[in-house]
Amino acid sequence: MGHFKPRDPDFERRAREGFARQTAMKTIGAVIENVAPGTIEIGLPFSDQFVQQNGYMHAGILTAAVDTACGFAAMTLTEAGSDILTVEYKVNFVAPAKGSRFRCSGQVLKAGKTLTICEGKIIAEDGSLVAAMLTTMMVMRPQQPS
Amino acid sequence: MGHFKPRDPDFERRAREGFARQTAMKTIGAVIENVAPGTIEIGLPFSDQFVQQNGYMHAGILTAAVDTACGFAAMTLTEAGSDILTVEYKVNFVAPAKGSRFRCSGQVLKAGKTLTICEGKIIAEDGSLVAAMLTTMMVMRPQQPS
Amino acid sequence: MGHFKPRDPDFERRAREGFARQTAMKTIGAVIENVAPGTIEIGLPFSDQFVQQNGYMHAGILTAAVDTACGFAAMTLTEAGSDILTVEYKVNFVAPAKGSRFRCSGQVLKAGKTLTICEGKIIAEDGSLVAAMLTTMMVMRPQQPS
Amino acid sequence: MGHFKPRDPDFERRAREGFARQTAMKTIGAVIENVAPGTIEIGLPFSDQFVQQNGYMHAGILTAAVDTACGFAAMTLTEAGSDILTVEYKVNFVAPAKGSRFRCSGQVLKAGKTLTICEGKIIAEDGSLVAAMLTTMMVMRPQQPS
Repeated sequence: MGHFKPRDPDFERRAREGFARQTAMKTIGAVIENVAPGTIEIGLPFSDQFVQQNGYMHAGILTAAVDTACGFAAMTLTEAGSDILTVEYKVNFVAPAKGSRFRCSGQVLKAGKTLTICEGKIIAEDGSLVAAMLTTMMVMRPQQPS
Repeated sequence: MGHFKPRDPDFERRAREGFARQTAMKTIGAVIENVAPGTIEIGLPFSDQFVQQNGYMHAGILTAAVDTACGFAAMTLTEAGSDILTVEYKVNFVAPAKGSRFRCSGQVLKAGKTLTICEGKIIAEDGSLVAAMLTTMMVMRPQQPS
Repeated sequence: MGHFKPRDPDFERRAREGFARQTAMKTIGAVIENVAPGTIEIGLPFSDQFVQQNGYMHAGILTAAVDTACGFAAMTLTEAGSDILTVEYKVNFVAPAKGSRFRCSGQVLKAGKTLTICEGKIIAEDGSLVAAMLTTMMVMRPQQPS
Repeated sequence: MGHFKPRDPDFERRAREGFARQTAMKTIGAVIENVAPGTIEIGLPFSDQFVQQNGYMHAGILTAAVDTACGFAAMTLTEAGSDILTVEYKVNFVAPAKGSRFRCSGQVLKAGKTLTICEGKIIAEDGSLVAAMLTTMMVMRPQQPS
């Protein structure tokens, strides 16, 4: 892990442009904090507009951010013109999402021709693990019919 | 499935009150459409404020709604004063989320003393399956220290 | 669900032949009990050679049977010459695996060109749910290089 | 991760004794290769008695070994007299299980009072990743009624 070589030297611009088209990220206040081949980090601020019944950030909103981190982590390793779709994910929430900001990271475990497997982590400001994700992404290559 | 007897006759009020405290549901426009013992249905409108890079509803926002449906489905079978936390979920996205409204349902498969297992479904207006969830919820009983 | 039309009229023979090549199924004593388009049922006997530390059938052995049920359920809907690989699965164990025999069923939820999504169930002799699976299978079509 | 302090100094004996009671592990030829607080490594030999239709080790058998690794990894951090049950797991198979031996490791991510979250990995002889697991284990403490 962490030793991936991108096929498209323009991978960072592609990831940032795709992220910018996700209005969901803007609406929840998420921003890209780091892009590297096979990995993306997203910062997500606490917002009282997105809480569950006890005032913690809603699991689905946390999931949106870490899913996006994993999706664009996968995209950094695809050829130019490819798109990424989420096939499925599994998320464990291991501690309440306390604090004012969360770091949501996506890391490619295996980049395949059709499927890319990633793991995601959500870390609180104090460094503690909030959630862990394991996810399957599908690579839609340029010439591939949808 | 579907033959659950609630321990608390006031289960519907508790589920609706818990839902009302989830600002995330209000922000994404989700509403409860049906409550019965062991099952909840939530309606989620399409919103261009919550899309991914291709203009479809973001997987995480769909997940927020179906997670909430499963969580309160679990709550309908708990004793008065209990709370529910999401331990983990797994979601498969089987078709793009097309259409102007989605029906997100949660159904208890097994209600245990400590853990409740639910399945969720997201259905498009044309009746097609958009996503399927399998999730583990934890019951926090009144006298239980957190 | 349950209204699938097979592309290959010879689907049952293909599923049974594939099953017969899985020595793992023979070794654990699993047998096909029913084949229909989009669904397979497998019977798995209790065996004290495959238990965990408390004498119940090991989760992984139960998983082997229900994974196979889902895989060949997916295969019943593929074209002749196709193969099926398990991309991933998630299984919830909702009750100890008690009894002398388990019914492990696989049911296609969505049959796609590349991926097929299935759900699996393991049912004890008394009709109670032992485990629920949600899984992603990959279709390897005849002309597709592996 | 990796900095866990066991509550029971006798954790290794307890893990090895629990493993020895799993006849499933003996039957598939799995052996414990390493035990440390919060982590277990199990070696699993290839066996043509446990293959799927293409001659690779069956996903369920690989799962049995990595589930056991995660379960006893969780057990190393429990108090004396506790037992561990698998609540659920999700496994991604990222490459065919080639080779004559597999290293199946379980690592605790978070050890809770009731639930312990672990990740598992299956590594081939050439060091490549075969499968990744994310799992929820339940701690059954001595005085706890089942």
